[in-house]
Amino acid sequence: MNESTQFEVIKGHGTGNDFLLIPDPEAAVNLTDDLVRSLADRHRGIGADGVIRIATAGVLVRKGVLACLPDGVGDEDWFMDYRNADGSVAEMCGNGVRVFAHALSALSLTTPAYRNADGTWAVGTRAGRRDVRIHSATATDAEVSVDMGVPEIMGRSGGALDGVWYDGVGVDMGNPHLACVVPGLTPAGLAELRVDLRPDYDRTFFPAGVNLEILTALDNGRVHMRVHERGVGETLSCGTGTVAAAVAALSDRFNDQARVREAWQETVHVAVPGGDVAVTVGADEDGQQIPATLRGPSRLVFTTTVTGAAL
Amino acid sequence: MNESTQFEVIKGHGTGNDFLLIPDPEAAVNLTDDLVRSLADRHRGIGADGVIRIATAGVLVRKGVLACLPDGVGDEDWFMDYRNADGSVAEMCGNGVRVFAHALSALSLTTPAYRNADGTWAVGTRAGRRDVRIHSATATDAEVSVDMGVPEIMGRSGGALDGVWYDGVGVDMGNPHLACVVPGLTPAGLAELRVDLRPDYDRTFFPAGVNLEILTALDNGRVHMRVHERGVGETLSCGTGTVAAAVAALSDRFNDQARVREAWQETVHVAVPGGDVAVTVGADEDGQQIPATLRGPSRLVFTTTVTGAAL
Repeated sequence: MNESTQFEVIKGHGTGNDFLLIPDPEAAVNLTDDLVRSLADRHRGIGADGVIRIATAGVLVRKGVLACLPDGVGDEDWFMDYRNADGSVAEMCGNGVRVFAHALSALSLTTPAYRNADGTWAVGTRAGRRDVRIHSATATDAEVSVDMGVPEIMGRSGGALDGVWYDGVGVDMGNPHLACVVPGLTPAGLAELRVDLRPDYDRTFFPAGVNLEILTALDNGRVHMRVHERGVGETLSCGTGTVAAAVAALSDRFNDQARVREAWQETVHVAVPGGDVAVTVGADEDGQQIPATLRGPSRLVFTTTVTGAAL
Repeated sequence: MNESTQFEVIKGHGTGNDFLLIPDPEAAVNLTDDLVRSLADRHRGIGADGVIRIATAGVLVRKGVLACLPDGVGDEDWFMDYRNADGSVAEMCGNGVRVFAHALSALSLTTPAYRNADGTWAVGTRAGRRDVRIHSATATDAEVSVDMGVPEIMGRSGGALDGVWYDGVGVDMGNPHLACVVPGLTPAGLAELRVDLRPDYDRTFFPAGVNLEILTALDNGRVHMRVHERGVGETLSCGTGTVAAAVAALSDRFNDQARVREAWQETVHVAVPGGDVAVTVGADEDGQQIPATLRGPSRLVFTTTVTGAAL
């Protein structure tokens, strides 16, 4: 990597899903795959699930990082330039957006010029514009809601984990999910499952692989969930997975064709190994799903200055 | 934890075995198990295999961290106050000592007053005094040799991994090792083994469990090794394990009872997943083993200031 590079890095996490944020308004850091891997390396670098550059969308277009402005994203909007730990680009990350918004606030970059009329902030992502709401924010802790887009219910499918078959609901959140409610499963029983093992699934239904969520049935507005992320293994949390879980937990309501249609919204509290989030889903008068909202915590843990030579 | 705590942390690693070093000459930081776990947490904290406080042995005794001065350790000697990631105390860590010595150098704490006549430095550990030699050191990179004590050959034993039985040599380095040379095994074949799986072993021979090393036969002074650490799983490197591997690789020489006795020393280059180290072992004229030396790299990656409230 470039020996002379020197830049600030903020480490933060949302329910244990952790990120390195690089405030880089001029997009001056040459964020190569190698540099991302070096930074994200948990033993030899700083360590994280992902690396996020903070710059405006317009600067990223002018520097050639983005080919064009994504759907709904303005030239002056702050853009979450997200990379996975392996250096590859990811379109969206529900936990990452919360930490990104928190960092904007901590860095005093949430000036009124960027605020929408309803008090939300537009954040650019490769999946398009996402509106976030910062409910509270200190230097270390914040509570943020993120618009997660409309979950697309793909229909019923199933998968096998550790020799046991689970029925579930396929949900497309930009990435594919199979969310399986297991009637009678307790949080203690869930904790004993081998979610670290690679699941089997219907490859015709999920040709690009699938993220698997196993969850308890809805009880008093709450479910417990564990997730096996495609190509990663078990993780402490997965933002889009919690939305898929909320859709699966409420599938009776989504499927209730007999009722007279009325608009509805419901919030499901989802307990993942890394913490608690709240997911709001619903439908309009025509029975069409409305955008889901993910609300959860963000914590900024520490800041350091990285010099290229040390990685 | 104590909300008002604020202190400096240096992250470093030796062949991928990584540590958080806390310069704390007055032993002012209340290094509780909870604080260690928070710091070492790879998703919610800074993340490392271990946490090392830097203070003199005398200060640690006066603050009650040490009950007394360990064998051969002087009041003024710098002491490696080592904790595992789970908060428990460890006596020694071969990779940790290198990074510790590097940090002493980077912090300009290796003043002549602490230097031995032969140019080595005495480092205090709970396993007693260890002499280290700093061959080279910059702000980011160092090459350090560490006296690892006398390896005690326990005799032949064996273990099973992934359904395959391996014959090996039991070596006591303060902690128990089973080092298995596999004739004909290539580095590519070694890379395919499931060293992440829990090994089976003779529990009469190793009543306190064992660290398992699988290695290629000695070829041109070099072996390739992977290690499953007791209670941890596969790691990128294990300092005492590389010494056990060198002993196993040279076991013909150690067992050569027929030869006229002469003092000998031999260096084995051990390639572990996290990098390369050189281990020197040998025996004196009476056939008694002499202390082993482990030479390898240290890298200091970044420095940050931790405030209690953020963890």
